[in-house]
Amino acid sequence: MAVYTIEFQPLGRRGRCRDGQSITDCARGLSIGINYICGGVGTCQSCKVRVTGGTVSAPTSSEMDAFSPEELEAGWRLACQTHPLSDCTVTVPAESMTTPQRTQVEGLEIATEPEPPVRAYDLQLKAPSLSDQQADADRLLAALRRQHQVHCRRVDIDVLRALSQQIRSRDWQCQVSVRDDEVVAVGERAARQLGLAVDLGTTKIAGYLVDLDTGNTLAARGMMNPQIECGEDVVTRISYITGSPDGGPRLQVLAVEALNQLAGELTAEVGESSEAILEAVVVGNTASHHFLLGLPVTQLVAAPFIPAVGHALDIKARDIGLRIAPGAYVHLLPNIAGFVGADHVAMLLATGVWQEEGPIVALDIGTNTEVSLVCNGRITAVSCASGPAFEGGHIRDGMRAAAGAIERLRIVADSSPGGLVQWQTVDDAPPVGICGSGVLDALAQLYLNGIVTREGRMVSDHPLVRGDGRQREFVLAGGEERSGRHAVGITQQDIRELQLAKAAIRTGIQALLDNNDCAEEDIRKVVIAGAFGSYIDVSSAMDIGMLPSLPRERFWQVGNAAGAGARLALVSTRRREEARTVASRVEYLELASSPNFMQTFTEATYLGRYRLRHGSRQEIV
Amino acid sequence: MAVYTIEFQPLGRRGRCRDGQSITDCARGLSIGINYICGGVGTCQSCKVRVTGGTVSAPTSSEMDAFSPEELEAGWRLACQTHPLSDCTVTVPAESMTTPQRTQVEGLEIATEPEPPVRAYDLQLKAPSLSDQQADADRLLAALRRQHQVHCRRVDIDVLRALSQQIRSRDWQCQVSVRDDEVVAVGERAARQLGLAVDLGTTKIAGYLVDLDTGNTLAARGMMNPQIECGEDVVTRISYITGSPDGGPRLQVLAVEALNQLAGELTAEVGESSEAILEAVVVGNTASHHFLLGLPVTQLVAAPFIPAVGHALDIKARDIGLRIAPGAYVHLLPNIAGFVGADHVAMLLATGVWQEEGPIVALDIGTNTEVSLVCNGRITAVSCASGPAFEGGHIRDGMRAAAGAIERLRIVADSSPGGLVQWQTVDDAPPVGICGSGVLDALAQLYLNGIVTREGRMVSDHPLVRGDGRQREFVLAGGEERSGRHAVGITQQDIRELQLAKAAIRTGIQALLDNNDCAEEDIRKVVIAGAFGSYIDVSSAMDIGMLPSLPRERFWQVGNAAGAGARLALVSTRRREEARTVASRVEYLELASSPNFMQTFTEATYLGRYRLRHGSRQEIV
Repeated sequence: MAVYTIEFQPLGRRGRCRDGQSITDCARGLSIGINYICGGVGTCQSCKVRVTGGTVSAPTSSEMDAFSPEELEAGWRLACQTHPLSDCTVTVPAESMTTPQRTQVEGLEIATEPEPPVRAYDLQLKAPSLSDQQADADRLLAALRRQHQVHCRRVDIDVLRALSQQIRSRDWQCQVSVRDDEVVAVGERAARQLGLAVDLGTTKIAGYLVDLDTGNTLAARGMMNPQIECGEDVVTRISYITGSPDGGPRLQVLAVEALNQLAGELTAEVGESSEAILEAVVVGNTASHHFLLGLPVTQLVAAPFIPAVGHALDIKARDIGLRIAPGAYVHLLPNIAGFVGADHVAMLLATGVWQEEGPIVALDIGTNTEVSLVCNGRITAVSCASGPAFEGGHIRDGMRAAAGAIERLRIVADSSPGGLVQWQTVDDAPPVGICGSGVLDALAQLYLNGIVTREGRMVSDHPLVRGDGRQREFVLAGGEERSGRHAVGITQQDIRELQLAKAAIRTGIQALLDNNDCAEEDIRKVVIAGAFGSYIDVSSAMDIGMLPSLPRERFWQVGNAAGAGARLALVSTRRREEARTVASRVEYLELASSPNFMQTFTEATYLGRYRLRHGSRQEIV
Repeated sequence: MAVYTIEFQPLGRRGRCRDGQSITDCARGLSIGINYICGGVGTCQSCKVRVTGGTVSAPTSSEMDAFSPEELEAGWRLACQTHPLSDCTVTVPAESMTTPQRTQVEGLEIATEPEPPVRAYDLQLKAPSLSDQQADADRLLAALRRQHQVHCRRVDIDVLRALSQQIRSRDWQCQVSVRDDEVVAVGERAARQLGLAVDLGTTKIAGYLVDLDTGNTLAARGMMNPQIECGEDVVTRISYITGSPDGGPRLQVLAVEALNQLAGELTAEVGESSEAILEAVVVGNTASHHFLLGLPVTQLVAAPFIPAVGHALDIKARDIGLRIAPGAYVHLLPNIAGFVGADHVAMLLATGVWQEEGPIVALDIGTNTEVSLVCNGRITAVSCASGPAFEGGHIRDGMRAAAGAIERLRIVADSSPGGLVQWQTVDDAPPVGICGSGVLDALAQLYLNGIVTREGRMVSDHPLVRGDGRQREFVLAGGEERSGRHAVGITQQDIRELQLAKAAIRTGIQALLDNNDCAEEDIRKVVIAGAFGSYIDVSSAMDIGMLPSLPRERFWQVGNAAGAGARLALVSTRRREEARTVASRVEYLELASSPNFMQTFTEATYLGRYRLRHGSRQEIV
């Protein structure tokens, strides 16, 4: 019997596949979690992969349904329907993976030539004597000049405080870490120089421990942002600050202590302590950036929405309470506007789209969604108040993507009355709620199956619909009330929330297109960044009119690109310069004052696939 | 009757003098405190002045006694014996003034072309709007570029924290203070920019509030160094640190809180607050410098006596707890060695002697006495452990120069048995003790009157000598026990302490001369800096062999030259560069390991006037 080797990208895993097995079979054998909602019968279309090398079986009828001829031509297949006929390379997009696997994908490395801001030098000092009484710091700087031709003028005060004891206890041997013309750390000779990159999100904080000399990520870790105790979104947190004199300091401390915890945990993973971190880069939205630095925010939320600072900052870590190497700095990438922050800059930097010709749409979906359009060398950006619906907020059974959250959902034709609802939960746990990607799938499926109209009204005459008014609900799971569990459903009110959220995003994209006099269909690429954006089924997003309807291959779900951008900036001063260029080139458009704003927004609340242009909507037949 | 105008320098005061009045009469009329020990009869020779303009009466016999023909030729006179015959200019050396007046002299300004490290710019910002959403800090920097052609890249984080509110509350007008490429303060438009210069002495701290743009001293203030609670001298304080884990932090806090208090008091004098201070310069001996910065000191007191840092430092004031303008820096001049600190550099800078050809001896007398010799373009320095005797320490009736301290003393021929002891006390209060300058006078007078031998033994057969052994004592005042006050005297043990102290200084001077193969008599100038050095009678110092015997006009008592150097460095970046040059050019000699050290020291314990050279002593006849 023939056995083939299948290589799964971007995970970089290889496995053996016996003749007759499907790609899904092979993947499951390797514990690669490819979606499997319908149990492998080809109906849920949630296991889309792209075969980029080798020969596979001919498309089945399920696959002919799932893909256009162009997509099939480009290698798009359903993993459960496809049987390798030779060694193959298979690319699995994030959306086709189950949650734990997607988390791995988020760790994708974007290679860059390291040009670290901090460099280490080994020194052997001559011990002083009565005939050579040069001061310790001066001796160190002279040795740097003589032994390494490095002309350094300053030694950080905290480094100075420890220096005399350090060099004496190490018999006058040491490693010196230099940043610009300043010594920021002195210690024992270490094999590697550590840096910390942080994506400080409103809800989640992602931290990466990076080898500054190689650019390799040594450890990665996420945690909830503890500032949630002061409000779920930035506007609530700003109200918390304006309402209490201790509010600002409280938010500052919560943020920095979270970073201290992350630094401690990440370094512990590699057997080091936080003090070994020689440089940090933090990106976040403008408000989170301001919270972390203790900058004023009241002017951020009142027109004309002005950040305290836009340009990139280099701040002594101790000045914000970050406990890493004594003299280390934290670098903050530039902010673009009050609601387009350094995280967006980092995303543009990591994806590189800012240097392309376009038209390219790049967006990071969250409570606040930032969108940029790269078009003919011009970059314009807007910020859309998309609200917390996609993070499970304001949705009756909404929850984060934790165990038991419905993350994928299909309604398939079946003998059941009204069809069968198939779902997949995080960790395959019994369903207890629905997370953002599940909500998106649900709305798309309800619309496609005629249970919700294009205006967003839920029909009353469907077997799985119950209740009335805003409480009218479509039961997704648990309706049979077996095992006493509460049913999980989508309500009419949930749908209204989702319509507002997705309309905000679509309006933002449209405002940029209109401003650049660019048509939707000309968009060459749509970059979707951020945790939520990586999880969504792009087809569902198009089906509900959240994203313009475009060929599937034009979408690029990049995971936590802000974190990737932070890592690039961490290890490369040239990338920091690039980030400055990016930020200075982006023109911010105030969405609310763009032409046809209300008109576009109203049209964008419609479900289904349609084209928008200058405030008018045209159905795609 | 003729009336003349007399100008007193360096006080810059003018007064009218009637025909027949003495210079002393005129001075007292102006409340200028010229010494007056003998009541104006010309016997105490303590009112030496120099007439530098105008015509005065012919020298009296007292003046012929007091001065050499060359000195008289140069204008030296006794103020009580001299009657102006025209408008005159009279220079009063510090040694001829009473204590309160000398304190004023210490405020002497040494003019420099201000090149302040911090410059202020007035800005009128354009208010932001929905069509102009530039961030506050970026707007500020852009306005600096546009309105003043100042290219500034950074805004201090603490300035950033206050900026948004500041510019909004001031209707977008503000004054920006720039240091190098950083904004260190933003505030309302101020008429002047303030700086703080501090001479951080072991015993006393002198603070000066300076206008950075003009270089003028606006206020000056002295205070006791509160670190005295941890030890009277630096060695005791270092023991305090090594003996307690909280010792270092305690000394650091004491020092910086003293500076904070000084800053508060000085700025209050001119109607400002400490936050208006935009830059500080601190000079002190190496140990005090290290205490203030929280640097380690154990390596300072053990051979080979190494400072943690020698080069000049620019440190954020907040990093040492100094509460001045939010982003302000404190600049610390370079240290030369473990026991020759930035205060000595400041003194060399202020006096300018480092640029002269020499031979010049420059010394700052204190518990530790630093001496430099400038000779043929070479500068060598030593440090002498002179002890606290000159500050009243280890002297039975010793005290600081406070009210009631005997500060000047003469023994004059009289019908009293053994002569009459004449003295002057600080503030003319009843005598309660004796301060450094009084101790020096006392020893000289005892030696000159044969009551103490050149070996330092007090004779037993003098009417005013009583007691025996090390307790043998010469009663200076209060011996009659009227009004129940304790007698003030000098004991045999006091004399031994003084011999060791003065021998240490003379040995230091001699080691430098020997090292440069230079003879004492070739010294062109002796610069005596520091509080004590300004108060001493130089003739007394020569009579006890503390200083080489040289013509009176070669001595220059410069008061607190370290404070003057700190002020120069405060207002001029060029002077800071000069200080770096000075520090790098000074060669430090370890006194204890210099040739003939013990021999020279032994010879230098002798009283009287003599020449030393390579360890041998030759009396001056």
